[in-house]
Amino acid sequence: MSKQFLINGTFQKISPFDRAFQYGDGIFRTFIVENKKPRHWKYHYKKIVEDCRAIKITPPKESALLSDIQLLFKAKKRAVGKFIISRGVSERGYKFNDTITHNRFLIKTKMPIYPNEYFKFGVDLIVCKQRLHPSVLLGVKHLNRLENIMARQEWKGDRYADGILLDQDGHVIECISSNIFMRIGKTIYTPKMNHVGIKGVTRELFIKIAKQLGFKIKEAIFNLDKLLKSDEVFITNSLFGVLQVKKIKNRSWQHQELASLFNHKLENLNI
Amino acid sequence: MSKQFLINGTFQKISPFDRAFQYGDGIFRTFIVENKKPRHWKYHYKKIVEDCRAIKITPPKESALLSDIQLLFKAKKRAVGKFIISRGVSERGYKFNDTITHNRFLIKTKMPIYPNEYFKFGVDLIVCKQRLHPSVLLGVKHLNRLENIMARQEWKGDRYADGILLDQDGHVIECISSNIFMRIGKTIYTPKMNHVGIKGVTRELFIKIAKQLGFKIKEAIFNLDKLLKSDEVFITNSLFGVLQVKKIKNRSWQHQELASLFNHKLENLNI
Repeated sequence: MSKQFLINGTFQKISPFDRAFQYGDGIFRTFIVENKKPRHWKYHYKKIVEDCRAIKITPPKESALLSDIQLLFKAKKRAVGKFIISRGVSERGYKFNDTITHNRFLIKTKMPIYPNEYFKFGVDLIVCKQRLHPSVLLGVKHLNRLENIMARQEWKGDRYADGILLDQDGHVIECISSNIFMRIGKTIYTPKMNHVGIKGVTRELFIKIAKQLGFKIKEAIFNLDKLLKSDEVFITNSLFGVLQVKKIKNRSWQHQELASLFNHKLENLNI
Repeated sequence: MSKQFLINGTFQKISPFDRAFQYGDGIFRTFIVENKKPRHWKYHYKKIVEDCRAIKITPPKESALLSDIQLLFKAKKRAVGKFIISRGVSERGYKFNDTITHNRFLIKTKMPIYPNEYFKFGVDLIVCKQRLHPSVLLGVKHLNRLENIMARQEWKGDRYADGILLDQDGHVIECISSNIFMRIGKTIYTPKMNHVGIKGVTRELFIKIAKQLGFKIKEAIFNLDKLLKSDEVFITNSLFGVLQVKKIKNRSWQHQELASLFNHKLENLNI
């Protein structure tokens, strides 16, 4: 374990009084590290700061996070980094003192191996029965992830690459581990998230690239029917980048070249 | 730390891959231990089993939990026990294997010292601005507690003993760390929780005792106005037992003897 895990830059133990462990009181962020460099770091760090502020944790300094990455990621090979920023250690109870100081955790894991077919033919999605509920913690990638975990139990194994989550009114919001887009002609739509959902870093970069490629981008409220009638569907996250969807329910899509183009651009973004 | 904390019955480290730490994927339960005996254990264990099942964790055996308590609580003095049952350790990601085995954590902390005035005169409550949202995890004492933590930040220090949480429609549901009751004559009302809220063990015992004392008990939907017009308000949890409320907003109540009677009965319940 010791080589896979840092707390505040050292190989410590996790305290049972750390509030991440006791209450999920913190935020996290997952990203690719290659050649000791975290990919799309500027965007990830910005989101770490925003998410910490949203739950009133003083954000960690960028230099501390970068130094952690240097210390833990020695190999050139692509791997996954995950920062957890917890509110820190406190006595039992929801209350904490003003003097509390956040803890930062860095975890290193292997890069997941996605089947070649994912990129060659696209992926299937399931539509989750579980609906998203509004939350006071809108948009924050916090450590309270039981709803995602319960939704992920709706199917076994890897038959579906991800599950579509709808809100209470049946509007498409996101997937359990990714954001979702649909293309209709030269316009790309992505769900408006004004009451639920998390806007990922790759979602932001996808929008940026789509504009460069001459697409119109619209945030919109739409239901599953509309999604199924679209010309093309994509999902995005920090690890697999962009994947085309080849099947949702009985609707199939032919493989197209756009997802590959997006991935190429994503890998070569100079940020 | 080593004497304050057990994992699966031994003095281990917390793995950064434990899902309680990564996602709040687990449940917890707080109770008093006195003379090495956990108070109201039958009820607490029943709730541990129910909560585990609600999020599809195989519950721990009662004998394992009781043996943990024997191992960690050596003193006769009253102290606080807290069990955390996590889904266990897995790779990064919401998915987990069927073979996953739960981890049980037992934490020992000092009994909080409540001011004598709490029991002598009653306590003040604040009404939290933050509203409760419905959740798929209705009634489960799970580790996703960021909403409680955000609500607890609405006031500093101990000026208020707890904060009242309303649902989206303004109905009284519970407090951040306790359940709530109101007495009108010989009837005691407590909020109906069919979409939000957690029914605590002491809530259940309070109802039991109230019936023994000849009160009618009703679960009902009511708003703050109704609460403020009642004859007496109580809050309950496993650590302080029953407290009378002496003030909410501009409404004050005279101290009465009922809360003390409830506490006496609670301490002497033979369960």
